[in-house]
Amino acid sequence: MKKRIIGVMGPGELGTDTDIKNAYELGKLIAQEGWILLTGGRNVGVMDAASKGAKEFGGLTIGILPNNNTKNISEFIDIAIVTDLGNARNNINVLSSDVIIACGMGLGTASEIALALKNNTPVILLSEHSESQQFFKQLSPNLVTVAVNTQTAINYVKRILME
Amino acid sequence: MKKRIIGVMGPGELGTDTDIKNAYELGKLIAQEGWILLTGGRNVGVMDAASKGAKEFGGLTIGILPNNNTKNISEFIDIAIVTDLGNARNNINVLSSDVIIACGMGLGTASEIALALKNNTPVILLSEHSESQQFFKQLSPNLVTVAVNTQTAINYVKRILME
Amino acid sequence: MKKRIIGVMGPGELGTDTDIKNAYELGKLIAQEGWILLTGGRNVGVMDAASKGAKEFGGLTIGILPNNNTKNISEFIDIAIVTDLGNARNNINVLSSDVIIACGMGLGTASEIALALKNNTPVILLSEHSESQQFFKQLSPNLVTVAVNTQTAINYVKRILME
Amino acid sequence: MKKRIIGVMGPGELGTDTDIKNAYELGKLIAQEGWILLTGGRNVGVMDAASKGAKEFGGLTIGILPNNNTKNISEFIDIAIVTDLGNARNNINVLSSDVIIACGMGLGTASEIALALKNNTPVILLSEHSESQQFFKQLSPNLVTVAVNTQTAINYVKRILME
Repeated sequence: MKKRIIGVMGPGELGTDTDIKNAYELGKLIAQEGWILLTGGRNVGVMDAASKGAKEFGGLTIGILPNNNTKNISEFIDIAIVTDLGNARNNINVLSSDVIIACGMGLGTASEIALALKNNTPVILLSEHSESQQFFKQLSPNLVTVAVNTQTAINYVKRILME
Repeated sequence: MKKRIIGVMGPGELGTDTDIKNAYELGKLIAQEGWILLTGGRNVGVMDAASKGAKEFGGLTIGILPNNNTKNISEFIDIAIVTDLGNARNNINVLSSDVIIACGMGLGTASEIALALKNNTPVILLSEHSESQQFFKQLSPNLVTVAVNTQTAINYVKRILME
Repeated sequence: MKKRIIGVMGPGELGTDTDIKNAYELGKLIAQEGWILLTGGRNVGVMDAASKGAKEFGGLTIGILPNNNTKNISEFIDIAIVTDLGNARNNINVLSSDVIIACGMGLGTASEIALALKNNTPVILLSEHSESQQFFKQLSPNLVTVAVNTQTAINYVKRILME
Repeated sequence: MKKRIIGVMGPGELGTDTDIKNAYELGKLIAQEGWILLTGGRNVGVMDAASKGAKEFGGLTIGILPNNNTKNISEFIDIAIVTDLGNARNNINVLSSDVIIACGMGLGTASEIALALKNNTPVILLSEHSESQQFFKQLSPNLVTVAVNTQTAINYVKRILME
């Protein structure tokens, strides 16, 4: 039977230190809950850190890769889905996740949040980026939640999965 | 030789009266400049109105359809690209356009703006939606321009195409 | 209103002299019928030759490009659809065409024929490759036609479009 | 670290009794080798039977679904990748698999074999369909192997993975 998948999205090359730290903790907490982690799969930024956190605490990790090979794959990915779709793969990231946690902000992440909300997938924003909070809460008031830290984000995920 | 393509993106079912009026005028002005119009191709909202404006003034129109058929195609589309990609087709919309004009705002439009900017495609925002202006200008200061009306938007397109 | 689109599919780098000659003639005949030509859009093989034939006889040409740029585009393409989907764009080629003519044979072409037939799009095989004729006619007896030359292929297209 | 993924492709609604029996055995043998099974994920034909075989023998199963939901998912899928790409998802099936076993034959399967070979992914044909054997062996002599039964197919996979 289909298992629970939690998507952690966030900047690659442009992730801040806070984003990376949060991503690692999210990966750890997701693994500890017994959920599967899904990311964009590359060996940089939030994708890599979340996958590392999940693997170090016994989780299973899926990476949805944008290219047609696994050259830039994170070493912490168990299951590589090789799409060769470029950024169109962002839609697969959100369609395949039960909940999306946006850890930090950037253009790719913004596209994933918009695509998730359009698909009625709940999104948790873990970022101090106030413009993004206002923008997405206005576009989709019922599906966007702002979390102040990683544990709060995980608590929101639990509540959403119980609905 | 490859012709110039201008993408007009905006809400479908949720387009406001102002969005629809602006979209029609954009289609007209794009046709008068001799550019090709590209939209999401369906028979609703900004897509339909822009295509109507272009066709009534002798333009050529391309519709990038999300489904695997042409059932919901705008009657003002000349060239139907049938993708069966759902919202992943949004990335094709922006990759195929020399410039994107966002006419109104919504979740699909937000995803297209983010994907365009990530691809370094210039975006002109024609909308009074101040949260979106602040959000996208912060994420990509050099590629986002706010236009106060349709003629100004077209003037910005001209300037971008001359660069 | 949506115009007629005829897809010409065939080998790129591996096209034979006969494939190239046939592709050029198909492009010419398609333009002379007033139909739009759709190809994979690159500057090699059957794609390039068919587009050249169409342009030299006043036709309109669409290229569905596999990459996220137009670096390898045929100079005979008017409308570039930039997909960044790799070979997944083959499905768009066949969904967007009213009829497919397979001019020559190869792995990409074989995938397009199979995807077209799965979508109930008629396929005309213009090739002396007997294994492919037997294979595809057995899988889809009613949708596959073998043409002995380019004019016969165009006659089949006419008949299909009148149905 | 990325785990081994074996793709089993074959007819859905049109699978024969032999196809279904072989698919179940392949799933079982793949699970017993400790490999991950990847299929098209729906609750019919070869996809469903292979996933059932893998789950009953303790394996892990991935389903690459064509729609934007999990309505038609096989109950034997652990990890659902929801693509909303229609048949364009066939390219993801083959890019994500280390080896493809084609169990039976049909139009979707033919597209997957062609896309796999174009991507230099080895394909094992488990089918008495002689036209397909001749066709694909001619197009790609070095990457196509014909297996006479499921155990032979698995032995070929082992040999390929050791290379």
